[in-house]
Amino acid sequence: MMSKVDTVRAYLTVLQNRITSAIAAIDGGEFLVDAWEKPPGQVLQGNGVTQILEGGAVFERAGCGFSHVRGPRLPPSATQHRPELSGAPFEALGLSLVFHPRNPYVPTVHMNVRMLSAASVDADGERVETTWFGGGMDLTPYYGFEDDAVHFHTSCKAALAPYGADKHPKFKAWCDDYFCLKHRQEQRGVGGIFYDDFSDGGFENGFAMMQSVADSFLQAYLPLVERRKDMAYGQRERDFQLYRRGRYVEFNLVWDRGTHFGLQSGGRTESILLSMPPLVTWAYQQEPEPGTPEEALYTKFLKPRDWV
Amino acid sequence: MMSKVDTVRAYLTVLQNRITSAIAAIDGGEFLVDAWEKPPGQVLQGNGVTQILEGGAVFERAGCGFSHVRGPRLPPSATQHRPELSGAPFEALGLSLVFHPRNPYVPTVHMNVRMLSAASVDADGERVETTWFGGGMDLTPYYGFEDDAVHFHTSCKAALAPYGADKHPKFKAWCDDYFCLKHRQEQRGVGGIFYDDFSDGGFENGFAMMQSVADSFLQAYLPLVERRKDMAYGQRERDFQLYRRGRYVEFNLVWDRGTHFGLQSGGRTESILLSMPPLVTWAYQQEPEPGTPEEALYTKFLKPRDWV
Repeated sequence: MMSKVDTVRAYLTVLQNRITSAIAAIDGGEFLVDAWEKPPGQVLQGNGVTQILEGGAVFERAGCGFSHVRGPRLPPSATQHRPELSGAPFEALGLSLVFHPRNPYVPTVHMNVRMLSAASVDADGERVETTWFGGGMDLTPYYGFEDDAVHFHTSCKAALAPYGADKHPKFKAWCDDYFCLKHRQEQRGVGGIFYDDFSDGGFENGFAMMQSVADSFLQAYLPLVERRKDMAYGQRERDFQLYRRGRYVEFNLVWDRGTHFGLQSGGRTESILLSMPPLVTWAYQQEPEPGTPEEALYTKFLKPRDWV
Repeated sequence: MMSKVDTVRAYLTVLQNRITSAIAAIDGGEFLVDAWEKPPGQVLQGNGVTQILEGGAVFERAGCGFSHVRGPRLPPSATQHRPELSGAPFEALGLSLVFHPRNPYVPTVHMNVRMLSAASVDADGERVETTWFGGGMDLTPYYGFEDDAVHFHTSCKAALAPYGADKHPKFKAWCDDYFCLKHRQEQRGVGGIFYDDFSDGGFENGFAMMQSVADSFLQAYLPLVERRKDMAYGQRERDFQLYRRGRYVEFNLVWDRGTHFGLQSGGRTESILLSMPPLVTWAYQQEPEPGTPEEALYTKFLKPRDWV
């Protein structure tokens, strides 16, 4: 019988290729496939496969990374709610993606699913494996379209429906809370779903929910790409996109726990920074003109809203 | 008699105009001057003047900000070495600048000088004012020139010479240590000087050293601008500059304590992010070709070195 970790690993590996194949097919370009392994002698051991398409016709930078690391001791930050596992050996597996399209009318998207597994010994001296899950997906438009946001959120809701009616409202609110640029009092985008530390119903339920979320990603996102990728745009829309991409950088480098912790704790920099946009501008105090679509992004889309 | 805070404020205000005038004269462009005041009701009160030149002929983005804030209680991070001042009311004044040139042969530069002042009451019930200083300047070339690095470091050393022969070696090493991108095991640039928590010799000595450092900035940097600003360059050099600017963003958002703490604690975002470059790229695993000037930057310049 395959172990839980091997089962999830096999699923994530297939998932990665399924997603990047679909993106490559729309784009016409090709993903670079870079398999890596952590050099021996470091505390964290592990390997991964980074796939990235740069300079494509539809995607200016699309990164999708699988990683699988093992460590001798769970860090305290991972065991706040599980004191009995403090210091236990662990494995962490996940798939993370951020796609930055070229056309400013196509939204940027992020998806991540991950599992942690820790080994401990129970009162009878038996080895016990505890697993828990995290993940989600969220959408960051440069120009807001109500039907895009509704479609994306509807897909998220459907993916969670089999796991309890409370899940979507809870994970939707968690997403709004998480993807907030507190230094600007501004949401990163129109949200989606976010969850962490999930172990309800044990491994079977957690893994099933992971698959449901991840398997719904392409149908949540690709229709928006198809709808928007050939819309005509000019320098104004491009400039606004490049400016707004700065917010993505600010969020990921200042607030995103995974990114920040990964960079500060010896993670693989180039894989962590897959999420960075290919080209970004900063400019002082850019306020959109009243009545423009750029203003509507701030006033109608970058506020938590019930989209479904 | 002017208070210490008023004296430093007057100096920094004049300094700001002196520096931006010199930069505007070289550039031919004009600084936007934006005076701001913190809205009442927040914990930190204060005001400042942000000056920024964007899209200039020589400087693509040159920001120079003065700020002066008052708070009811010193944060614990500021009083590690001064437990007797924990929770004391304080004022903080500083000038910070980052200039991003257009020509890739002209290095980016950063300078900051600041003073903290805290009020406490001594054993006899007398009001006591404690002041301490921090600051420094450092240089970030895209293409390395030995004589530029030597000139810059020589200026730094001369500025500190009157304050003790130990200061330059100490503050030079501190700068190398501080401006390190630990997630890449890479220096931000060729360094300069950095100091913090300086109170040797009291206010008179600290303020004199602040002036000596800040007054030497223009002569440390402008000759490099004059020397390099009209050098011919092509797309290759421009691309490398934009790519390397990503490192500046990574350092400031991930590692720089002032930036990170400022953004997380309710500082004025647009003034803090004056340091961001105007246009930046990220690309996966860009390794310079052996034997190129781009490789020489990494191997000969982005390593701590004795330049003087």
